[in-house]
Amino acid sequence: MHQLRKPYLLFLGDVDLKSDAKTAFGLRDWCGGDVMGEWSLPSATVTLELPRCSPAQAAARGAGSLVIGVAAVGGVLPPHWLPELEAALHAGMDVVSGLHSRLTSFPSLVQAAHRGGAALRDVRHSDQVFPAGTGARRSGKRVLTVGTDCALGKKYTALALTRSLQARGVAATFRATGQTGIMIAGSGVAVDAVIADFIAGAAEALSPDNAPSHWDVIEGQGALFHPAYAGVTLGLLHGSQPDALVLCHDPSRGTIEGYPNCPIPDLQHAIDRYVEAARLTNRGVRCVGLSINSSTLSDAAWQAYAKELALRLRLPVVDPMRGGVEPLAEALLAA
Amino acid sequence: MHQLRKPYLLFLGDVDLKSDAKTAFGLRDWCGGDVMGEWSLPSATVTLELPRCSPAQAAARGAGSLVIGVAAVGGVLPPHWLPELEAALHAGMDVVSGLHSRLTSFPSLVQAAHRGGAALRDVRHSDQVFPAGTGARRSGKRVLTVGTDCALGKKYTALALTRSLQARGVAATFRATGQTGIMIAGSGVAVDAVIADFIAGAAEALSPDNAPSHWDVIEGQGALFHPAYAGVTLGLLHGSQPDALVLCHDPSRGTIEGYPNCPIPDLQHAIDRYVEAARLTNRGVRCVGLSINSSTLSDAAWQAYAKELALRLRLPVVDPMRGGVEPLAEALLAA
Repeated sequence: MHQLRKPYLLFLGDVDLKSDAKTAFGLRDWCGGDVMGEWSLPSATVTLELPRCSPAQAAARGAGSLVIGVAAVGGVLPPHWLPELEAALHAGMDVVSGLHSRLTSFPSLVQAAHRGGAALRDVRHSDQVFPAGTGARRSGKRVLTVGTDCALGKKYTALALTRSLQARGVAATFRATGQTGIMIAGSGVAVDAVIADFIAGAAEALSPDNAPSHWDVIEGQGALFHPAYAGVTLGLLHGSQPDALVLCHDPSRGTIEGYPNCPIPDLQHAIDRYVEAARLTNRGVRCVGLSINSSTLSDAAWQAYAKELALRLRLPVVDPMRGGVEPLAEALLAA
Repeated sequence: MHQLRKPYLLFLGDVDLKSDAKTAFGLRDWCGGDVMGEWSLPSATVTLELPRCSPAQAAARGAGSLVIGVAAVGGVLPPHWLPELEAALHAGMDVVSGLHSRLTSFPSLVQAAHRGGAALRDVRHSDQVFPAGTGARRSGKRVLTVGTDCALGKKYTALALTRSLQARGVAATFRATGQTGIMIAGSGVAVDAVIADFIAGAAEALSPDNAPSHWDVIEGQGALFHPAYAGVTLGLLHGSQPDALVLCHDPSRGTIEGYPNCPIPDLQHAIDRYVEAARLTNRGVRCVGLSINSSTLSDAAWQAYAKELALRLRLPVVDPMRGGVEPLAEALLAA
């Protein structure tokens, strides 16, 4: 389980495309209260419009970690970023990275971390050994976001649902299973990075026993119909033993992204299969609604689509970006 | 992908329970032509009834590897075994282990391997990085053994089916996915030890393009209805893209072993779900029969059980230990 030290200084490197700074914007939007400011190299052209703050200044003000908030070409850490990271480490701040390159593979960073008494946190990787899943029931309630494909809103939906529950005074915790989610939450497990035998065990560790009325809102990964990642999805589903599922979907996709021979399944079929698989570890599981990424639809088309879908599936249908997730929170709490 | 050097010298340590030497007996029975002899400490009381041969003698006669063929308490390598392993390494033989303890964690073994120009092979572990699964169709034919639980004959069935196909003059290769299978085959991937994201990709690498009439007979792992390991099973199923499935089952089990709250599913339901999941990467997949571990049944009870099951499911039903797997080979080749 990763445990990160907040508050954060967000590092943007020399980014010149807003889309490459997706992680930094996500952190600003979802855990802004934990973000002290931003820092970048002089050639960067993108800004988060947060106070600029050098690693030394941030450390002096109590920052816990410098977080690399940008994607690097090929996932490789560019050597000219190293001096800024070393400065943070020397000042006692941890460095957090979701890049493919492991921070620990850079001797100068290892040395600087040692000297500053700081840690290198590679949230894409997982060196922890988990026990195998037990299937034993845990106290507290759990909802898992699942999808018809990857990258269509499972994390966003889980974050929005957590906020909505908390705003209603319901005790709720976002449980992160991917690198950006882990940075936002400050803890979590990159389930796709654990040893295959321990996927379900890692998911069990992620949402331990809790108060009976507490909700863990668990970020889903992959899709049950995905030719590369379905194993991760199924292990996460079994280990999460959810009481409720939210199915996330993007109506503009006819096939799994990058797999033109794999059609997106019918939505009722997808719900049936997710619920059936989840029943293995929680007989009472049900699907409480759909979260649609409708960014390709006009307002009118979205209204018509949502109405038809809600009637056909007899479930609330929302787009978190178009009206929020309140109907999902209500359905969750109704049972 | 593990690649082991044959022929083998089988090492039995100081074993005094036949059941602890399961791996050694399996190697003797399934790749006897690759086994040069056995070696053990003076206190061992179990023998394979093979020629005794010290590591130095075996190396002089051309042995490629000393294979640890016994389970150790807690999976930990006992220090008093080290001198025999070091002798093998000094003489230029690799050492192969399926224990939890990594051979590479013992400095004296690392040193001996270096001096002898030999390798340490931890087949339980996998340090290889695989690409993500592509789902792309490969040439050649594939059959995968799947199960209603773990440890009920998936490896044995795959080995027996490979032999049966080869005896009929059909080009066939056993593809190992677990440690004992890897030792028998001399190569393979421990799929439960790969990073979760790459289960399907590892399975794709294990059974590459082949001649159109060649059969890969792939050892299954886990079960689709297992609360700890279903993710491994599903990823292996998708990556294997099997043309045919053989369902393995033990009628004496009412629940998943070690999980008394998880009932074994109905057999027709299990077949339907395996075939449906496999259709994601191979639309033409079918179940060609059942392989039953009937060791708890009398001869009469087995005959009655097999007859009833074959009628009900309209598929051949065999027990490899009671009459062999010929009906499965026939069904495989019939289509």
